[in-house]
Amino acid sequence: MEAKNKVTLIKVGGKVVENEETLDHLLTSFSQITGYKALIHGGGRLATQIAEKLGVETQMIDGRRITSDEMLDVVTMVYGGLVNKKIVAALQAKKVNALGLTGADLNCILSAKRPVKEIDYGWAADVKKVEGEMLSDLIRKGIVPVMAPLTHDGNGHMLNTNADTIAGELAKALAPHFEVTLVYCFEMEGVLRSVEDSSSVIDRLDYASFQAYVKEGIIEGGMIPKLDNAFEAVDSGVREVIITKSTLINDLTKGTHILA
Amino acid sequence: MEAKNKVTLIKVGGKVVENEETLDHLLTSFSQITGYKALIHGGGRLATQIAEKLGVETQMIDGRRITSDEMLDVVTMVYGGLVNKKIVAALQAKKVNALGLTGADLNCILSAKRPVKEIDYGWAADVKKVEGEMLSDLIRKGIVPVMAPLTHDGNGHMLNTNADTIAGELAKALAPHFEVTLVYCFEMEGVLRSVEDSSSVIDRLDYASFQAYVKEGIIEGGMIPKLDNAFEAVDSGVREVIITKSTLINDLTKGTHILA
Repeated sequence: MEAKNKVTLIKVGGKVVENEETLDHLLTSFSQITGYKALIHGGGRLATQIAEKLGVETQMIDGRRITSDEMLDVVTMVYGGLVNKKIVAALQAKKVNALGLTGADLNCILSAKRPVKEIDYGWAADVKKVEGEMLSDLIRKGIVPVMAPLTHDGNGHMLNTNADTIAGELAKALAPHFEVTLVYCFEMEGVLRSVEDSSSVIDRLDYASFQAYVKEGIIEGGMIPKLDNAFEAVDSGVREVIITKSTLINDLTKGTHILA
Repeated sequence: MEAKNKVTLIKVGGKVVENEETLDHLLTSFSQITGYKALIHGGGRLATQIAEKLGVETQMIDGRRITSDEMLDVVTMVYGGLVNKKIVAALQAKKVNALGLTGADLNCILSAKRPVKEIDYGWAADVKKVEGEMLSDLIRKGIVPVMAPLTHDGNGHMLNTNADTIAGELAKALAPHFEVTLVYCFEMEGVLRSVEDSSSVIDRLDYASFQAYVKEGIIEGGMIPKLDNAFEAVDSGVREVIITKSTLINDLTKGTHILA
């Protein structure tokens, strides 16, 4: 069997994306990554701002957006249109052959509407199936997927989908076809031992230490599901998962490396 | 040389797209077209409505939208996000392997910002280059492009682009690779001899008759640039151009057939 090619997946959140300067810096760095690659972006507060102007109420529970019919239209517009196409046009100007995708395009990520238990999240998605082989074929042609945090249910509905989850699921689906490096961009230079000390980056993190840090309250909030995704990815054949700052994606020796 | 495969391009305007019922009917008809195909959609009044809610002023000169910075964001959201992804998700539910595209995606349609002469159209596009061979390869794989009326300038800017123009340019770029049938959907069953009589469809129209009808005032307004595109297409190797109602796309013996 011949050696697998490498692919680098960069996941970048709403904060980097919504600021023109940080976005341009990120896209320049991204364009300099050699070899096969893909970008997964969030959308974040831009959708909230536009929803507000349109008179659509934003409801959040535990940091998760409740996606009403009206909010689904807003996130489809903002994530799938405004943010995604700005990134694609900017990457094309940097000679990256970007292709903007939602899960509906080419049926590449099929999801199911999250079942209603205590909370009705509305049009929010649980990812069911990523077309890893088809996406691998695109990537091998030199096409660079730019994934918006949107999928579909196969019945004609778009679904609002967490970008960290998409990144993790995409990484796992590409793992049989490539040596996958998945990079979660974060505001800090990695996972910190001490929130007050930005230089206290944990270089290498295994699952037992992760659990211990959570117990001690050192790792908390939104970092916990991000790391759950990260550990699930390395356990599912993803070669490397790294949590680092968006300005450091050209030096992947830095950041926090997740160990299987 | 082996015979070329056929491809059917359907261009549908904003009025059909913005009404859920007419859109669903159109997409069902579209899904029933056999063989290779692509859809080109407008966006129309939906962008105007959303712009209004966002406090972005819509300025039109001679039926053409003046695209300010703010309006470019609105059309990128509405055409490239909301409208395009709703169509893609609906087609996937009808087992059509749709891929939503703007001209920026895969660099498939490169344009230039329209030069400022008497009127500054803002971020409006004149199409320069369509990647016909690359798009033909996608289509031959069974992928169904769904084109939004947006292109890019190669320097990182999206451009608002007339959907009729995109349809015509796409048809011409595919003509070396396929026997292309281009269908412009219209409110009437074709070009009418008499606006008062919806049954007065002109079955076959050549350029001399077109010129005569324009002179007599029978063909006027927005139909003139549409027919200019149509005649340019048949003169550039497109096999058939048909102007018909969106409810009649499964019977292309109807409508107005443009003659080379």
